Amino acid sequence: MEQYEKTAKNKVVRGAKRATYDKEQVFNILDAGCICHISFVMNGEPFIIPTAYGRDGETIYVHGSVKSRTIKAVKEGIPVCMAVTHLDGLVLARSAFHHSANYRSVVLFGTAEEVESNEDKNHGLFVITENILKGRWDECRVPSQKELDITSVLKFKIDAASAKIRTGDPVDESEDYNLNVWAGVLPINNRYDEPIPDQKLRDDIVVSDSAILAWQNSNE
Amino acid sequence: MEQYEKTAKNKVVRGAKRATYDKEQVFNILDAGCICHISFVMNGEPFIIPTAYGRDGETIYVHGSVKSRTIKAVKEGIPVCMAVTHLDGLVLARSAFHHSANYRSVVLFGTAEEVESNEDKNHGLFVITENILKGRWDECRVPSQKELDITSVLKFKIDAASAKIRTGDPVDESEDYNLNVWAGVLPINNRYDEPIPDQKLRDDIVVSDSAILAWQNSNE
Repeated sequence: MEQYEKTAKNKVVRGAKRATYDKEQVFNILDAGCICHISFVMNGEPFIIPTAYGRDGETIYVHGSVKSRTIKAVKEGIPVCMAVTHLDGLVLARSAFHHSANYRSVVLFGTAEEVESNEDKNHGLFVITENILKGRWDECRVPSQKELDITSVLKFKIDAASAKIRTGDPVDESEDYNLNVWAGVLPINNRYDEPIPDQKLRDDIVVSDSAILAWQNSNE
Repeated sequence: MEQYEKTAKNKVVRGAKRATYDKEQVFNILDAGCICHISFVMNGEPFIIPTAYGRDGETIYVHGSVKSRTIKAVKEGIPVCMAVTHLDGLVLARSAFHHSANYRSVVLFGTAEEVESNEDKNHGLFVITENILKGRWDECRVPSQKELDITSVLKFKIDAASAKIRTGDPVDESEDYNLNVWAGVLPINNRYDEPIPDQKLRDDIVVSDSAILAWQNSNE
């Protein structure tokens, strides 16, 4: 399987046995989420924002208002670091020290550029929308020219990436297995609940397939 | 209610009507989570990591191995930016443009310092552990001297903060309410599932109160 190269930037130093550079695993973790945290440097200081994203091959798309401070800063071609984290459970060990979490996380590095043409902007917005909810793009009204004009779409190629994955039981010191302490995992429910119609929805409109499928698939 | 001062750093520019600087709201969002993303600048470039945290008043605690690259960088007293984001639902509008999310998010700014004494380190670890799972600290074995020695505990005072909150239905263009498009919210389930015992757990140990309470409270 294809791997990201380990560099000084993306090499996982701590918990290296939980790390992977495998592209398929990185992509799977990205595709399982829809909100990332992006960090960038402005005036020498770190900033971080949560935002929606989508992946097309090795390209990540994000978007925002043309007036957004973040978008303005990032589209100048500065380096960005992006993280996607899925918390799957709390790992409760017999000692405070060995408490941990089950998770899947990815950290990416790249340099953003602004998408210019209407066609490319629409493609970026399609990728983001479909990543949030598969099938939704074809159900709703596509962006107007005015909407495209006030939306910045940014993309960056993944230059470096690493993933970390933890699953399973706590790992305690051997002598601690005799303690009278319950140990195990408190799983976190990463599912959708039943779709709630807009209060202003017309009575004759049934819930869309995208929402029904996402709800059902996540509760299988 | 006490507010964080709006500065150039923490002032929310986009979606300002969703923003709040109210300390109680900032604290509530922080206390509802256990994993944050922290960003910092190293060699002029942005880095971001997910990590556990805890809050004690206006002080945030994080921890890591003394060997961690992040910990080594951050404990030098460099500025950090921290985000906590709870995604509560996908907001499905009639137009692609007005798709949104219901969420609660906080962005904080501060400068980290290392906690030195055993007493203060234990306090920081207590705060982090209790934020992850209330009541857990008293159920498990506290850190040994050896464990304290290989753990760095960092703290920072919240110098600036802002929160953003979105709830409720999509907001569409008035002419779009006539479209044959389902609109509404796909809620995200932020709950715990039933605790799973460690496979190596002794048969005579019942599940701890902390895990049972968190599971039950989150499913009320």
